[in-house]
Amino acid sequence: MTTIKDSVHDHIEVEGAAEALLDTPEMQRLRRIKQLGTVQLVYPSANHTRFEHSLGVYHLASRALSHLGIEGDAAAHVEAAALLHDVGHGPYSHNIEEVTQRHTGKYHDDVDELVTSGNVGDVLESEGLDPTRVAALVAGDGEFGQLVSGELDVDRMDYLVRDAHHTGVPYGTIDHERLIRELAFVDGELVLAEGNVQTAESLLLARALMNPTVYRHHVARISKAMLRRASEKLLAEPDIDADELRRMDDYDLLVALRLNPSTNEFAERLANRTLYKRAVWAELPDVPESVIDADHETIVDFEREIAARADVPPESVILDVSSRPSMTESSSRVMVNGEIRQLERESPLVQALRTAQEQQWRLGVYAPSDETERVGRAAADVLGLDIDGALVSEVRRSLNTTLDEFE
Amino acid sequence: MTTIKDSVHDHIEVEGAAEALLDTPEMQRLRRIKQLGTVQLVYPSANHTRFEHSLGVYHLASRALSHLGIEGDAAAHVEAAALLHDVGHGPYSHNIEEVTQRHTGKYHDDVDELVTSGNVGDVLESEGLDPTRVAALVAGDGEFGQLVSGELDVDRMDYLVRDAHHTGVPYGTIDHERLIRELAFVDGELVLAEGNVQTAESLLLARALMNPTVYRHHVARISKAMLRRASEKLLAEPDIDADELRRMDDYDLLVALRLNPSTNEFAERLANRTLYKRAVWAELPDVPESVIDADHETIVDFEREIAARADVPPESVILDVSSRPSMTESSSRVMVNGEIRQLERESPLVQALRTAQEQQWRLGVYAPSDETERVGRAAADVLGLDIDGALVSEVRRSLNTTLDEFE
Amino acid sequence: MTTIKDSVHDHIEVEGAAEALLDTPEMQRLRRIKQLGTVQLVYPSANHTRFEHSLGVYHLASRALSHLGIEGDAAAHVEAAALLHDVGHGPYSHNIEEVTQRHTGKYHDDVDELVTSGNVGDVLESEGLDPTRVAALVAGDGEFGQLVSGELDVDRMDYLVRDAHHTGVPYGTIDHERLIRELAFVDGELVLAEGNVQTAESLLLARALMNPTVYRHHVARISKAMLRRASEKLLAEPDIDADELRRMDDYDLLVALRLNPSTNEFAERLANRTLYKRAVWAELPDVPESVIDADHETIVDFEREIAARADVPPESVILDVSSRPSMTESSSRVMVNGEIRQLERESPLVQALRTAQEQQWRLGVYAPSDETERVGRAAADVLGLDIDGALVSEVRRSLNTTLDEFE
Amino acid sequence: MTTIKDSVHDHIEVEGAAEALLDTPEMQRLRRIKQLGTVQLVYPSANHTRFEHSLGVYHLASRALSHLGIEGDAAAHVEAAALLHDVGHGPYSHNIEEVTQRHTGKYHDDVDELVTSGNVGDVLESEGLDPTRVAALVAGDGEFGQLVSGELDVDRMDYLVRDAHHTGVPYGTIDHERLIRELAFVDGELVLAEGNVQTAESLLLARALMNPTVYRHHVARISKAMLRRASEKLLAEPDIDADELRRMDDYDLLVALRLNPSTNEFAERLANRTLYKRAVWAELPDVPESVIDADHETIVDFEREIAARADVPPESVILDVSSRPSMTESSSRVMVNGEIRQLERESPLVQALRTAQEQQWRLGVYAPSDETERVGRAAADVLGLDIDGALVSEVRRSLNTTLDEFE
Repeated sequence: MTTIKDSVHDHIEVEGAAEALLDTPEMQRLRRIKQLGTVQLVYPSANHTRFEHSLGVYHLASRALSHLGIEGDAAAHVEAAALLHDVGHGPYSHNIEEVTQRHTGKYHDDVDELVTSGNVGDVLESEGLDPTRVAALVAGDGEFGQLVSGELDVDRMDYLVRDAHHTGVPYGTIDHERLIRELAFVDGELVLAEGNVQTAESLLLARALMNPTVYRHHVARISKAMLRRASEKLLAEPDIDADELRRMDDYDLLVALRLNPSTNEFAERLANRTLYKRAVWAELPDVPESVIDADHETIVDFEREIAARADVPPESVILDVSSRPSMTESSSRVMVNGEIRQLERESPLVQALRTAQEQQWRLGVYAPSDETERVGRAAADVLGLDIDGALVSEVRRSLNTTLDEFE
Repeated sequence: MTTIKDSVHDHIEVEGAAEALLDTPEMQRLRRIKQLGTVQLVYPSANHTRFEHSLGVYHLASRALSHLGIEGDAAAHVEAAALLHDVGHGPYSHNIEEVTQRHTGKYHDDVDELVTSGNVGDVLESEGLDPTRVAALVAGDGEFGQLVSGELDVDRMDYLVRDAHHTGVPYGTIDHERLIRELAFVDGELVLAEGNVQTAESLLLARALMNPTVYRHHVARISKAMLRRASEKLLAEPDIDADELRRMDDYDLLVALRLNPSTNEFAERLANRTLYKRAVWAELPDVPESVIDADHETIVDFEREIAARADVPPESVILDVSSRPSMTESSSRVMVNGEIRQLERESPLVQALRTAQEQQWRLGVYAPSDETERVGRAAADVLGLDIDGALVSEVRRSLNTTLDEFE
Repeated sequence: MTTIKDSVHDHIEVEGAAEALLDTPEMQRLRRIKQLGTVQLVYPSANHTRFEHSLGVYHLASRALSHLGIEGDAAAHVEAAALLHDVGHGPYSHNIEEVTQRHTGKYHDDVDELVTSGNVGDVLESEGLDPTRVAALVAGDGEFGQLVSGELDVDRMDYLVRDAHHTGVPYGTIDHERLIRELAFVDGELVLAEGNVQTAESLLLARALMNPTVYRHHVARISKAMLRRASEKLLAEPDIDADELRRMDDYDLLVALRLNPSTNEFAERLANRTLYKRAVWAELPDVPESVIDADHETIVDFEREIAARADVPPESVILDVSSRPSMTESSSRVMVNGEIRQLERESPLVQALRTAQEQQWRLGVYAPSDETERVGRAAADVLGLDIDGALVSEVRRSLNTTLDEFE
Repeated sequence: MTTIKDSVHDHIEVEGAAEALLDTPEMQRLRRIKQLGTVQLVYPSANHTRFEHSLGVYHLASRALSHLGIEGDAAAHVEAAALLHDVGHGPYSHNIEEVTQRHTGKYHDDVDELVTSGNVGDVLESEGLDPTRVAALVAGDGEFGQLVSGELDVDRMDYLVRDAHHTGVPYGTIDHERLIRELAFVDGELVLAEGNVQTAESLLLARALMNPTVYRHHVARISKAMLRRASEKLLAEPDIDADELRRMDDYDLLVALRLNPSTNEFAERLANRTLYKRAVWAELPDVPESVIDADHETIVDFEREIAARADVPPESVILDVSSRPSMTESSSRVMVNGEIRQLERESPLVQALRTAQEQQWRLGVYAPSDETERVGRAAADVLGLDIDGALVSEVRRSLNTTLDEFE
């Protein structure tokens, strides 16, 4: 057994297959992938990695299994899946996942290849575990897969607390121990036991407060969008493909962007924090449906058209269309009077949080700081926004920015 | 200047009039009044006092004043009021305030007498402060009174964080520093600056989560109700009146209850934690309006009638009718697009939290554990509840008890 | 099983005999005994109780037993003893133990009577445990008794962390989880496993820093001395004896002191924090051996003589002679190269800490603030100190007071 | 003014020249240099950077200046120096400083060039500050330089607390607020005010406990030694020189080591955590003086000779000779009875800690895991150690490793 000291859960005991998995290059690589990517440009202390998060998820999974009375083979598979659940993440975690997914068709939880072959597959087999079963658990399949990936998964419980600890923003500080003690399986579904509507709500609320403050802070969004744009340019180069890029770590990618002439400027901007600024920051009702639902090609076209109309180089315009708000936790199941109920049926907060999320939704157009005026005006025209460039600064003021190292 | 170490705010510097006020018996008495009264029977670590809370409120007031640029005489009055804001509390804080208020007509923030005369008045005058002005600030009067008692007051900011620290329940962990930095006075109103709708929401949500988990936990409610009943009985004795009782501390009251034959049994039950149990625990729609709005005399009559019908002694029945839910923070003011707006106009959460509060509302009837069955059935009859005694246990299950040292 | 939320260890699970013991009046009484007595007059947040501490010690004992692989009957006895280890404490914990011990011959860990009869004895027997064996464990007897009371006991691990949490002084923040994981039994002795000399040192250092800052802060010492004097006076009254006093809680004692005319003044002084001040504060080399080793009667004689010479009433003089420094942890056993060694043999720090403790030792003579001058001079004469009254203020300055809510 | 959220100090306000300095590429580069380098291979959460530490040091400097009543021009220079104090650090902070220093003759606090020219120099001048004066303060020169670099500097106060927060090891949790409040200038010397011998000791003890547990943990030492060796090899290549290397960040260096064939193996080993193991781990008395005081060339010769005798490739042997123990804090100055005294004169702990440090000193010889046996035996011969290879495992056991993610 290995005991590891963690800044969030104190001592974490790792044993069995999990202990052996720790030593694979695939797991060690997660030490070099930041949990929150460019959020560190907003919250300078947010330098924690997918590695420590993976350990935390493994730890909470072990505790949950023990509370649920699940042991032996089933538990070993779930624990392995918990530890491995993020092994498929590319550099900068979710920041550029959209790009690699578009090129490879695969999300980070599609770990079949990584888990069933190579070092990880070898370790799993030599430890008597079934790699295919582990990969399925990572994807959230089956009864026990809900513990690893689902509305009440331990992933969420770890990241909220960990992100709060490292950013300094207290909103994510949930009572994870309470949550784990109240988990139960009823008719094959993972639920919270009787008397826990509020426990479920607290999870939902924590994420609702962390979202605009941390995860979707506008500076994090801008820098992510710049990183995505740079990664696209890198993939346009002959010597690198998306499958390689997915297996890089943060170090590889940052240096690759620096060394490549076509991406070097973005790399410098990100390194020196001379980021683009908002040219447009529009609310949901002011944006045409066709823009909200635009696919990648259409967005690229929009960007070109805006650049042309504003008379700036194409790389001076980034259009950042957030996906429509969703709220996984709303379908968490809670026992109420002996029946399994979805949280949204029981809690008046769910619908309100949905509305709040819609109000917080923003379409962004970003440009170098001396071009925001021109780009903003052009974008309003091209996208058919209900505002003109002059209004952008007004809208900006109503923003819910909770922290501001910057404009 | 005196520097005091606090478990929540670390070092607190107390100077000027505040330093002199600290030494009055009236302030020192707050060391012997628990902040959360009987909540300590649910959360054993919740033994913090009104004294440390008062220091915390003084500290946050000082920081807020400094951020707002308020100095000199005005600041000194607000700081004194912040330190003194709870000096009028009776033993067990809010637990028996309803009783003393009924007998004296005064709430704890009616501190005119305490602040304008005696030791406190003397200190204030010798420090060049106007006692009447301080008493008005404690009551929340005037522009600066909003800092001491209002929707965005520093009282709330301290108690949420402090109660979280001492109970171990994380929900109250707000970002009080952020709140204080964003306070502003606009047209004489205390508001949160532009961009803080979510900051205001976080305060509301913290209280919404702390309420059922801590402040209105059913065991805390039962023990409070028992304490109120015992205090009523004590006041029926010839040798003590309500004005005296209000000036007692927790120590005086507990020992008085023990020594007095008519209250000794309640004192023992509270001391040994052999509390009454719920005979009825009914939701809002199941309770007739006439019961919800019953005044004290009617409640006493109900209790007698229930006891008679159940054939138990009168002290075996306690009817606990919570007041209808309210939500002070909903009228917090936030700047939005340059205008002062009430939070409830801006936030979809406010209405949802109101609904949630109504769902959490419960009418309780309590009795010794071997009489709950009979008392429950009798109470359902007498109060005209839509449930019969047999249903009580069903209802009980759906409860949102977040912690359970006990039934 | 009962789950209790604790501000230090989060969720504590109590089961079996321990769960039943919780409900006894003897355990519930500990809710009304402050862990640190009058330290709360220095650190206003230090209001935690022996009850929550007892839960914490039970929790750490359970974890230690589980790490050591001790189960069944043996574990159940140790857990019961851990929970009960402070049940013999009188009001204000150690503050007046010297007084009650002098009158009854018993220390707080002499719990034979309390544990083998009455409610506690009944519960233990009905749970199939042997009360005599539990009482012996509380006293630290036998192999497993070392876990409850010894150089490496879990009592110490809990109180250091808990006192740090509640005072706000970080020095007690040890790595208790590490300590518990490294415990082992070798040849019947409780030791720390190989590689833990420093772990043992950290425990020693934590206490060495907490001692002068918290436990022996001069204001805590003064108020304790006043409380002892008042308790002596109370015992001189006909209607109360020492056995009764030992079974009181803080509430009983404070009110008894208030109501009794001979102790009322001390009660008021303690309540209003108008404490005596130091008239003498002398270092070890300046105090004759005969004073350091004086027994109670001699001290009383000294006090009378000083009062007479200073021409002040007898209750105006309190002579506070600390016992000579000791350091239990210095004999902690640690495995080094396969042998059991005492920490003091391995660690150069032990001897240094002993020297530091001797340097910190102080003899105090306390008096009302307007009499310190006269009393100080008289005391120097009577006790044969190497300083005269005028020097007292000099000496005072060199003091290591780390916190100062006051003079 | 910019407000930045920090996980340790909560909100940090940066204004004036400091705010402008934040935006320089030189400061932003510190975001990509880990505070503790390879310690992260032992404590997975220790990913904090020199950037957040620099903000923390700036923050504490501001508070200290305000307590000391230093304002205006002098304060602005000290604050700038505090923010810039680590701007001269190379990649992996202290880990390879020995290497770059050997090649360039410069330590990290030799920032003359960086601060008096380029972006930083420009900003300082445009803000009306004197770059030469700032550089001198960074080096600890002059009265106020003691605040930035000296026995009682704010650097130390920040890193102890920050490293504790991020590793999860509580030993560094000092009372920094207390330290800052007690600073004073007496006769041009920075001292702790009267009554703070113990405050000074607490700083010393925190570092004494963090040293073996964190900073000099053997796995951190092994990986640092590997990194130094790899950097030496990199500098032997024609296309990179030491001045360039000093200005790299962690990302640059790691990728450079990967891409270079002569260092690629070390890079892989560090990335995958397949580290060398201890072949020798010898205590001070067992090591000849000539080895302890060997210069770099002699060490290289030793390594070659050991490799030859063990018949392994030269890169299989790393000889790691720690410098002799030192203890800067021992000369901290504290006021005692109105005189400035050095801590070591006042505190018996200082000498004891020196002895403890000598006991903890270890000479290491590291090799790939399958060659430790042979290399150990050869090293004992070549270095004239009082142990033979067979003894290594014995010695190893007595080690004070406080954490063990690994052998």
